[in-house]
Amino acid sequence: MSPMNMPADLPQRDAVDQALVDGVLAHQLRPLAKTITLIESQRPDHKQRARSVLEGLLPHTGRSMRVGISGVPGVGKSTFIEALGLYLIEQGHKVAVLAVDPSSSVTGGSILGDKTRMEMLSQRTEAFIRPSPSAGSLGGVAEKTREAMLVCEAAGFDVIIIETVGVGQSETAVAGMTDIFCLLQLPNAGDDLQAIKKGIMEIADLIVINKADINPQAANVARSQIKSALGMLRHASPNWTPPVLMLSALQKQGIAEFWKTIGDYRSAMQKSGEFDARRRHQAQAWMWELIDQGLRARFASHPRVQQDLAGLQAAVEAGRTTPSAAAMRLLGYLG
Amino acid sequence: MSPMNMPADLPQRDAVDQALVDGVLAHQLRPLAKTITLIESQRPDHKQRARSVLEGLLPHTGRSMRVGISGVPGVGKSTFIEALGLYLIEQGHKVAVLAVDPSSSVTGGSILGDKTRMEMLSQRTEAFIRPSPSAGSLGGVAEKTREAMLVCEAAGFDVIIIETVGVGQSETAVAGMTDIFCLLQLPNAGDDLQAIKKGIMEIADLIVINKADINPQAANVARSQIKSALGMLRHASPNWTPPVLMLSALQKQGIAEFWKTIGDYRSAMQKSGEFDARRRHQAQAWMWELIDQGLRARFASHPRVQQDLAGLQAAVEAGRTTPSAAAMRLLGYLG
Repeated sequence: MSPMNMPADLPQRDAVDQALVDGVLAHQLRPLAKTITLIESQRPDHKQRARSVLEGLLPHTGRSMRVGISGVPGVGKSTFIEALGLYLIEQGHKVAVLAVDPSSSVTGGSILGDKTRMEMLSQRTEAFIRPSPSAGSLGGVAEKTREAMLVCEAAGFDVIIIETVGVGQSETAVAGMTDIFCLLQLPNAGDDLQAIKKGIMEIADLIVINKADINPQAANVARSQIKSALGMLRHASPNWTPPVLMLSALQKQGIAEFWKTIGDYRSAMQKSGEFDARRRHQAQAWMWELIDQGLRARFASHPRVQQDLAGLQAAVEAGRTTPSAAAMRLLGYLG
Repeated sequence: MSPMNMPADLPQRDAVDQALVDGVLAHQLRPLAKTITLIESQRPDHKQRARSVLEGLLPHTGRSMRVGISGVPGVGKSTFIEALGLYLIEQGHKVAVLAVDPSSSVTGGSILGDKTRMEMLSQRTEAFIRPSPSAGSLGGVAEKTREAMLVCEAAGFDVIIIETVGVGQSETAVAGMTDIFCLLQLPNAGDDLQAIKKGIMEIADLIVINKADINPQAANVARSQIKSALGMLRHASPNWTPPVLMLSALQKQGIAEFWKTIGDYRSAMQKSGEFDARRRHQAQAWMWELIDQGLRARFASHPRVQQDLAGLQAAVEAGRTTPSAAAMRLLGYLG
């Protein structure tokens, strides 16, 4: 390891890639978009270049508030993010909107596939909107979005909004890369709280009832239900109880209060040291996840494993061998 | 692979180990206990022998009802298991009681460390009671208990009860090796449902309020609360809604109904095919967990990984390198 603990075996960055680094650091949008395209590419040479550009940008990342936003289709995520983005620009912020949507490769982009979805915001130079990478697996999509987030930070965006829909484990992935995870809810009263069933409310730091203006009474009932449900769930932080806010993104009501609450959260987390601890933990967890993926891929590509895996799996399922005997045998092939 | 898909590279079983196999299959208790001792041993030669004995027993395993039982200290697990065990023996069953308690190596056995805890049951030849292996990590303890369960099945026990206390992820481990996972609750009314907070109620197939005779009114309130909580949670099976039973283990009230409910569950699961599917899934998951553990252990023992891991972890935490760059570098050492 070099004195700075930096990887020493990276190739010298070539002029084209150095120009990307310089352009991003000069807060130019075209190099920003080009770098994210490199990150999203499947080509090995592009991956290598993306890694090199990212290393150049890293010292200039981390200085944003990373906000995760989730909610079922129809809850008004686009309207809310547009209203929030325009409010933040008024307050002098620069806002990047990214997305994690593992279904986008199938559906051709179910969220953020079209900038007309946030027409006003997309016309502002202080905003950068990027649809979800369509890379297939959730792990791949999340990794690319996480790295795109770093590039946006290097390009001077100080608020990063990462949007997701409730597909599989995508909420967990977004909560795992943001400083605060916000859940948008409809003002539907009812025993059946989908978010609890799916384990999302447990990871939410802030819950927002959108469209609260349409039926304030129903919104109030929903709020008490959510509060009572939250009372039964554990929250990760001893220094923060997830609040339940009511707002109307369409009427632009409650947006300022939402941002003030995020500020309160950030203060509380920074004061207790949890803000930095969460980021450190996220980076570590990310690294180990990638290592596990890599170890599994190496394992699966071994010729003898490929030859015997299916047979041993069948033997384990049928009870003809134990899981540990099968595992020991397969691991033994690695030498 | 041999025609039977059996591992072909196992050494011939020697006479001592073949005697263990034969003794267990003859339903003798001494070879049963000796085999479990082999399984629990840390010595490499014992591990090899345990593997060989297990392979000989495997064709005779799987024919029990595997019942997981969890609950906080004080809920009355021992009294309940003893009452249940004695009832089952009356009905002609043979009952083995095992435990998963990762804390037992520290505390010297907090559960099942002493057979006097189930004095009546332990005196019956139709019962076999074994304390938790004290092997340190939850993964190790759970693996040994799972294998002990197979040995008990080969020895003719047709009901296996696996007990655990709420330590870390031990409930998840036990739910992952049993056909039905039962949660014992105290008749305490209150908003604060620990089991929900810890995510245990989500994996429970059956919930029992013990000591319901002491304060029937409080038990009723607790029952409605638990039912309402269950209504908000998802249950894994579309063919089973977890019931909430009330009983008194001390008064031996409700034990027959408990066992009848287990029978109903088994019928419903077998009819839908979920019973076998769950066992197949458990065996697969177990094999992959052991493979992942093995891959991680190999990774961690590589000299260059040992040399650079701490430095790269620090660089990732400090944001001097990305998780993916660090992961790629470490994986690259494996060649």
